[in-house]
Amino acid sequence: MNIAFIGIGSMGAAIAPHLVAGGHAVSVWNRSAAAASALHGVTVLSAPAEAFVHHDVVITMLADDNAVRSVILDSGALDSAESGVTHVVMSTISPALVEELQHAHERAGVAYVAAPVFGVPATAARAELNILAAGADEAVERVMPLFELIGKKVWRLGTDPRHANIAKIAGNLMITQAIESMAEATALTESYGLAASDFLAVVTQTLFASPSYQRYGRNIAQGSYEPGFKLTLGLKDVNLALQAAAERMAILPGAQIVREHMLEAVRDGLGDKDWSILAQAVHRRAGLGGTRG
Amino acid sequence: MNIAFIGIGSMGAAIAPHLVAGGHAVSVWNRSAAAASALHGVTVLSAPAEAFVHHDVVITMLADDNAVRSVILDSGALDSAESGVTHVVMSTISPALVEELQHAHERAGVAYVAAPVFGVPATAARAELNILAAGADEAVERVMPLFELIGKKVWRLGTDPRHANIAKIAGNLMITQAIESMAEATALTESYGLAASDFLAVVTQTLFASPSYQRYGRNIAQGSYEPGFKLTLGLKDVNLALQAAAERMAILPGAQIVREHMLEAVRDGLGDKDWSILAQAVHRRAGLGGTRG
Amino acid sequence: MNIAFIGIGSMGAAIAPHLVAGGHAVSVWNRSAAAASALHGVTVLSAPAEAFVHHDVVITMLADDNAVRSVILDSGALDSAESGVTHVVMSTISPALVEELQHAHERAGVAYVAAPVFGVPATAARAELNILAAGADEAVERVMPLFELIGKKVWRLGTDPRHANIAKIAGNLMITQAIESMAEATALTESYGLAASDFLAVVTQTLFASPSYQRYGRNIAQGSYEPGFKLTLGLKDVNLALQAAAERMAILPGAQIVREHMLEAVRDGLGDKDWSILAQAVHRRAGLGGTRG
Amino acid sequence: MNIAFIGIGSMGAAIAPHLVAGGHAVSVWNRSAAAASALHGVTVLSAPAEAFVHHDVVITMLADDNAVRSVILDSGALDSAESGVTHVVMSTISPALVEELQHAHERAGVAYVAAPVFGVPATAARAELNILAAGADEAVERVMPLFELIGKKVWRLGTDPRHANIAKIAGNLMITQAIESMAEATALTESYGLAASDFLAVVTQTLFASPSYQRYGRNIAQGSYEPGFKLTLGLKDVNLALQAAAERMAILPGAQIVREHMLEAVRDGLGDKDWSILAQAVHRRAGLGGTRG
Repeated sequence: MNIAFIGIGSMGAAIAPHLVAGGHAVSVWNRSAAAASALHGVTVLSAPAEAFVHHDVVITMLADDNAVRSVILDSGALDSAESGVTHVVMSTISPALVEELQHAHERAGVAYVAAPVFGVPATAARAELNILAAGADEAVERVMPLFELIGKKVWRLGTDPRHANIAKIAGNLMITQAIESMAEATALTESYGLAASDFLAVVTQTLFASPSYQRYGRNIAQGSYEPGFKLTLGLKDVNLALQAAAERMAILPGAQIVREHMLEAVRDGLGDKDWSILAQAVHRRAGLGGTRG
Repeated sequence: MNIAFIGIGSMGAAIAPHLVAGGHAVSVWNRSAAAASALHGVTVLSAPAEAFVHHDVVITMLADDNAVRSVILDSGALDSAESGVTHVVMSTISPALVEELQHAHERAGVAYVAAPVFGVPATAARAELNILAAGADEAVERVMPLFELIGKKVWRLGTDPRHANIAKIAGNLMITQAIESMAEATALTESYGLAASDFLAVVTQTLFASPSYQRYGRNIAQGSYEPGFKLTLGLKDVNLALQAAAERMAILPGAQIVREHMLEAVRDGLGDKDWSILAQAVHRRAGLGGTRG
Repeated sequence: MNIAFIGIGSMGAAIAPHLVAGGHAVSVWNRSAAAASALHGVTVLSAPAEAFVHHDVVITMLADDNAVRSVILDSGALDSAESGVTHVVMSTISPALVEELQHAHERAGVAYVAAPVFGVPATAARAELNILAAGADEAVERVMPLFELIGKKVWRLGTDPRHANIAKIAGNLMITQAIESMAEATALTESYGLAASDFLAVVTQTLFASPSYQRYGRNIAQGSYEPGFKLTLGLKDVNLALQAAAERMAILPGAQIVREHMLEAVRDGLGDKDWSILAQAVHRRAGLGGTRG
Repeated sequence: MNIAFIGIGSMGAAIAPHLVAGGHAVSVWNRSAAAASALHGVTVLSAPAEAFVHHDVVITMLADDNAVRSVILDSGALDSAESGVTHVVMSTISPALVEELQHAHERAGVAYVAAPVFGVPATAARAELNILAAGADEAVERVMPLFELIGKKVWRLGTDPRHANIAKIAGNLMITQAIESMAEATALTESYGLAASDFLAVVTQTLFASPSYQRYGRNIAQGSYEPGFKLTLGLKDVNLALQAAAERMAILPGAQIVREHMLEAVRDGLGDKDWSILAQAVHRRAGLGGTRG
């Protein structure tokens, strides 16, 4: 297939090569052309609008609502789109923006597939992403061969694209709450002299023997928070969750608590560390003085 | 060994038979004699004090601080204890009570081993408990053969018995926070039309592919909360955590939130359901009207 | 002076007559002309833009950010404004919008005075408003004679118009927290059999012998919440406070709690009642079953 | 009347002289005899039990539950009490302890009147206390002449002594929430450049023109927190409120927030400052860095 890939950040740069390796013709566009040019075997586009002509599929992996709005909507990229194109939007964006995008895509005759993922750049590099896919069945079917090249498993979440995005947002929220809970639990054990590492060794091999607990538990146990998923990006996602909840008048008290701790950590200048560093803010509130554990 | 087992509730009744099957002479005491008599191959004792004479090891599995205080301390059972007995206390009790018990045991010349467990009666029946053991090394070594009969794995947490108890309490707290987080996340997805079951199917097989998430996630997905670990007992444990934290002037904001939801569910008359029913209180606060989600 | 008054809602309708009575020539504009025509002794304008020509002072009392943005900015009303006009904005709006308005007014050569008030329509009808005024000194001086016609007292808050607005928002937030605190305190006393009315009689005549406690305490004591300041408007103001705080990365945990209770009450269909009805949500969470106001 | 006064702390020392001045024969007992001896015109007792014989009225003003339990119950003071004595307990104590005391007093034939007060030592010195009185009508009537000597006003709260105590506790809770709300509001205004003092000047003369707001608002505006009512004592009272609520399964979310901030301030070593210093913890959480009071 002819594929246009928009957004060559750390995730996009890890995903696109698998499409090339799969034998597809891949064009790329990125705000800074340097990142695009660094990829092997791809054609560099000079404007987002070019992605929506002469390609079967456009894949977008941009950072946030603002980037997607700017590149896809405000740029007018859809105005000249060829009817019949399928647009796979992998970004983690708000359900409100998805709804707006859906309308714009309908008008342009472009099929819209939401496909946010669970996974970090390293996961993408190993083509082991978990892909949450939602959109019209025939559109999703069309791009399934591409998903198989870049992911470990595709989770079909029906035909409403917003469902994939809300699932991604809710899943990320759960990760932050898992970190919060490890931080509170270790604050408690440490206040009685039981080291965080000793405690976490038990629970992350028993009750919570899962990837996310083990990954972030290790950070907390070692007091080492890099490299990883930036706290500022994590806070952005929690804000998406709370904003989406507010639009439904839903109250999420635990999420609110986590947001406060993330905000405190960002204020402390830790925004570029892995988001599990919110544990430091939790430890300080618990009275451990921010000295980790 | 000659073993006395105090407390034949649902946990004790599932554990004691493995000791009998292991070839040990087992005497039992229970407040209501009926439960004790129902066990095969055991001798029934008529008072807790009898456990501390003519036995090598006493194992106590009572419900809470009050029960342990009443049966072990207030009864005077330790007054006539033979020196050299090892007392394995498997109950989930407060670090404050452990400290008090330690002093009383020292005076009586009885070795104290804390051994709370992760696992429900069904786990105990399969002899697959995770045992958190802490106490003087030689005392723990003495009872390791017994632990091997009843557990899947023993986690040694040093020589301070309180460390085993605070680990158990902190672990249980983490379970409630995991339930809270699934409840909040599904409240969010449902408010956008994505069913809790569809969302939980994804995250409990990916990010949170661990026993506790799968067990309680199933309850939330199905809106079915029995049988299980009673909410009232779970609330007791969260109160233990918050009380223990308060004694160290530690603030655990997420735990506080969970406590509120558990309390609301108890007030709603749901105290006998599985503790994951706290999800109902979360869903109602989120605005799902208590209709599960 | 020639005065144009924009926004004849319940507040505007109570304020404007005092200007007429003070001997000023008053023109008015309102989205629905009926409300404007109902006033005696005024000229009705047909567009907001007319307010900014042939008048010395424009006074705007519109409901919220959206209304002000639409009527003042999006309408292009400032484009044809006569230089030298003074615009007194009495609406409770966000500091972010004030900043945007300031720039637009500067470009148009119109002086901007922020003058939000403490007081309900009945207070306005008695010309007893407390006016929070901020803006360039000469501009504020120019309109002081008008303030004296409509208010009991003018509180000068310097030259930065945002300061008047943030003070108004913060003051309203304090009112909601006062209501919250009376609701929590009475939930506690009632749970021990001491009636809310008996308790509130004491504290609103001693520690809290102030207008706001007495006014809202009466509502709570009587379980009667109308007429008054609409809950939905109050929630709007608390959201303004939290949004303004978020822009400064400030965490206001008590405000967050109040917001949740207001949201719950709105969800319960009580949005048109006086905002002190948030006490009902507090009482229900406290376990009083919502049975007493 | 013959009056025995138990507890000559800062409050007792300010109250007792008014009874002497009123022409009553006053005996006093205090744990440290020095404070008792320092009073003029009184007889010093050598044990609490002496208070309950040869006196018409015993007045107790001790610090907290522990002190009252120790001096009145554990000492056996009531065992030899003369029937017909009236005991006025002015301490702020838990409803649970009041209930226990009531039973003990009934057995001893001593009438129990609860009479906690609003007011600090300076208020007591001016005989301007607000007295919350509850107990059997004839007992309260008997001591009304004494109340008139020491207080500005007596608030009768019925015949159940616990009602006076829960009212006192709830009132104190409201004070802490008022402080919290001033702290949050000023955190917000300061984050936009409006000084706390400028803002508080407005609201404590308008919406919140009451003694408690003015007193504590002044502290916050000046960043000066001494002398006053000790934070540790205030935290004790908030803990009483939360404990009393927990016994009724009542949830008080705002009180919980305030407790956290008080605890943080105590942890920071500020326990001896006026309790309005909780504002510092609020300001720090809001991001003001604790740099202004």
